[in-house]
Amino acid sequence: MSKFKVPYKIYLDESEIPSSWYNVRADMKNKPAPLIHPATLKPLTFEEMRPIFCDELIRQELDETTAYIPIPEEILNFYKMYRPSPLTHAVFLEELLDTPAHIFYKFEGNNTSGSHKLNSAIAQAYYAKKQGLKGVTTETGAGQWGTALAMACSFFRLECKVYMVRVSYEQKPFRREVMRTYGASVTPSPSMDTAIGRKINAEHPNTTGSLGCAISEAVEVATSTEGYRYVLGSVLNQVLLHQSVIGLETKAACKKYGIKPDIIIGCAGGGSNLGGLISPFMGEKLRGEADYRFIAVEPASCPSFTRGKFAYDFCDTGKVCPMAKMYTLGHDFIPSANHAGGLRYHGMSSILSQLYHDGLMEARAVEQTSVFEAAEMFARVEGILPAPESSHAIRVAIDEALKCKETGEEKTIIIGLTGTGYFDMLAYEKYNNGTMTDYIPTDDDLAKGFAAIPNVNL
Amino acid sequence: MSKFKVPYKIYLDESEIPSSWYNVRADMKNKPAPLIHPATLKPLTFEEMRPIFCDELIRQELDETTAYIPIPEEILNFYKMYRPSPLTHAVFLEELLDTPAHIFYKFEGNNTSGSHKLNSAIAQAYYAKKQGLKGVTTETGAGQWGTALAMACSFFRLECKVYMVRVSYEQKPFRREVMRTYGASVTPSPSMDTAIGRKINAEHPNTTGSLGCAISEAVEVATSTEGYRYVLGSVLNQVLLHQSVIGLETKAACKKYGIKPDIIIGCAGGGSNLGGLISPFMGEKLRGEADYRFIAVEPASCPSFTRGKFAYDFCDTGKVCPMAKMYTLGHDFIPSANHAGGLRYHGMSSILSQLYHDGLMEARAVEQTSVFEAAEMFARVEGILPAPESSHAIRVAIDEALKCKETGEEKTIIIGLTGTGYFDMLAYEKYNNGTMTDYIPTDDDLAKGFAAIPNVNL
Repeated sequence: MSKFKVPYKIYLDESEIPSSWYNVRADMKNKPAPLIHPATLKPLTFEEMRPIFCDELIRQELDETTAYIPIPEEILNFYKMYRPSPLTHAVFLEELLDTPAHIFYKFEGNNTSGSHKLNSAIAQAYYAKKQGLKGVTTETGAGQWGTALAMACSFFRLECKVYMVRVSYEQKPFRREVMRTYGASVTPSPSMDTAIGRKINAEHPNTTGSLGCAISEAVEVATSTEGYRYVLGSVLNQVLLHQSVIGLETKAACKKYGIKPDIIIGCAGGGSNLGGLISPFMGEKLRGEADYRFIAVEPASCPSFTRGKFAYDFCDTGKVCPMAKMYTLGHDFIPSANHAGGLRYHGMSSILSQLYHDGLMEARAVEQTSVFEAAEMFARVEGILPAPESSHAIRVAIDEALKCKETGEEKTIIIGLTGTGYFDMLAYEKYNNGTMTDYIPTDDDLAKGFAAIPNVNL
Repeated sequence: MSKFKVPYKIYLDESEIPSSWYNVRADMKNKPAPLIHPATLKPLTFEEMRPIFCDELIRQELDETTAYIPIPEEILNFYKMYRPSPLTHAVFLEELLDTPAHIFYKFEGNNTSGSHKLNSAIAQAYYAKKQGLKGVTTETGAGQWGTALAMACSFFRLECKVYMVRVSYEQKPFRREVMRTYGASVTPSPSMDTAIGRKINAEHPNTTGSLGCAISEAVEVATSTEGYRYVLGSVLNQVLLHQSVIGLETKAACKKYGIKPDIIIGCAGGGSNLGGLISPFMGEKLRGEADYRFIAVEPASCPSFTRGKFAYDFCDTGKVCPMAKMYTLGHDFIPSANHAGGLRYHGMSSILSQLYHDGLMEARAVEQTSVFEAAEMFARVEGILPAPESSHAIRVAIDEALKCKETGEEKTIIIGLTGTGYFDMLAYEKYNNGTMTDYIPTDDDLAKGFAAIPNVNL
């Protein structure tokens, strides 16, 4: 019988939950480009955004200078229901890999929504409630964001209308039922409820939907329903701001226990988890106080950073949203049907896009069978069954730890473990059965998406 | 906007995880009846049990006198990966019910297996490994125990063969895939791998299987495969012993924060959760040091305590297991197909059966629509999506809290919240759609089960 190591989790006290969010834009020399109006190509004003977003969230969206924004007490109290989240030393993974690297993971899956998305959902629901609104609309793909928002709205007694990509609605009924249990209405998208939905259904009678299309529907309903606003679970500056709670706790845990990370790795779909995790560390790097390597990991089937264009593009298929400057594959890009889990958005957070453009972080694209191989390896020794999204980061962390084994370097690696894979067992089943395949779009595939990117030069 | 209360979780430090399990039998004046050999009707000896169970687990099974049994360091280290579990004050539920009662829940769902089952799975896997065994077999119904055991075996690099009730294997493929991800082999039961499986398949060609039948198969494989033993996730004394970690932590948290429970409520299938939760408190009651009310909650569709017979019966359909004295509905009793979730075992822990028989605890049977009503209520305010099993306890806790509202009494209620409902969304979907129904067996239905109970008078 082998000698078993002692795993340890670094728990902070409730009192160590940060009392402010950190706004990395305050420390960025090159600010992220603003959202612009597609007609005027001018930066959107507060007033122009008001029909879409809650007032306080617009203020946060536009605020480029305030480094620390206090977290309201009501949100802090909710955070206390599942935070602080543990930073765990992955001793069994290290042992399995026989690496001198030190691997830690910040685990955001210990709440019913199963992911970090709740950190922003509760904030957005709070500000909507505070503004006296009746409800909010949103879109969801794999369902993590929709679930988190349904929980948050249930807590604050807000109505919640979720437009769920049709293929997920039909093939992933369980997340749909979690949302319904929390009282949300869930509609498959494209629906016949909205003008844009009817148009898309007429043009593509058998479409299984896309995230970009569901966003268009949710925005249409929010702007045409009294007392409603639209909320989004990633990409936006405000979302990265809320998610900074992940990075702030990670930094506090590192400080408390004398851990000095060399590499911080997170998966990147729209960028909310990665942005939240790295923000406070990036702040130090931007201020010249410390240096870290940051690695964004994306699927090879949806490679926004590694193969996308840095340009203004629409955030949604129906072009009802503002335009954002970001790494994008084109607003009508849809990943291959064999792509599992989330991380299928065509664009990327403007903040992260700017940081990447400025050479302040790296990006890597990985194929899904290698991701599930890493997921299984991790699950078997560390216990947690990771979400496919999170497993992208695990894959690259393992790769980096194996490099350390070759070089003998004792690097410290932090993984953003965004959530659990309980609702992704169809994908695990494919992997277990050996029927999962990889897909890498050809340059020609990508060229079609790029062709739809509008030609905006500001 | 209403005033939001501050929820709080009572976390213990890692150092406060108990270092010994508590064996309630040591304090019982009327000991639970021993397992007997079906041929001789004599109590099973250590040697007779050796082909079935691991040696150390047999010692624990037979030990009626040692009050505290030290937890080996390797198991404690594993416990540290997900323990201590929080005792949470359900302030939002109290607010919703407008009750003077104080409600707390001990939440065991924060691990990948999603339930308390891991507490015993890791212990059983450890002793199997320590004995130099190659692998273990077991059965699983809804899949919580199988998942927990697969995780534990993966951790200790043991082979794990799970016989899964066929209807669950087919209708709940996701838990099956979690087990496979952790490296277990999962076979639908009845299978053609075993003599008993072939016999049952021949007699009932379209059978969807039962827990009692899967147990028979798992025992047959364990006893006929070199280096294998059988392990069971509930009912047995050893399992209640391991699960006492729940009650010991609960007691420590109560002591630390000055909470004096009046009523402790848990769901009861085979009894492992309830037994583990109440043991240390029951010990105080047995020693005359304190008084508590204990309530076992079972489904009205499988009412072992409230309508069963206290008698020696077989633990499995195939009658390959020893016989136990317990409250039983008869070893071939199968709950109606509309019964959701676990808690479908025909029998009950001998320890709990004796305590109930001696008037030391109460039992209540509840119908499933009222259970899901309670589950939804709880989820919406407390955040956690409870397992259907756990929701039985929530139902009765709510009923007791509403009684307090009538009487004005400030009773303190502790709920054993055994796990999460992520893999039970088919049942939630039925509830959400209003198509869930209740089923209460008639006296005639029960009489058929009782007829199969052997006539053993010792």
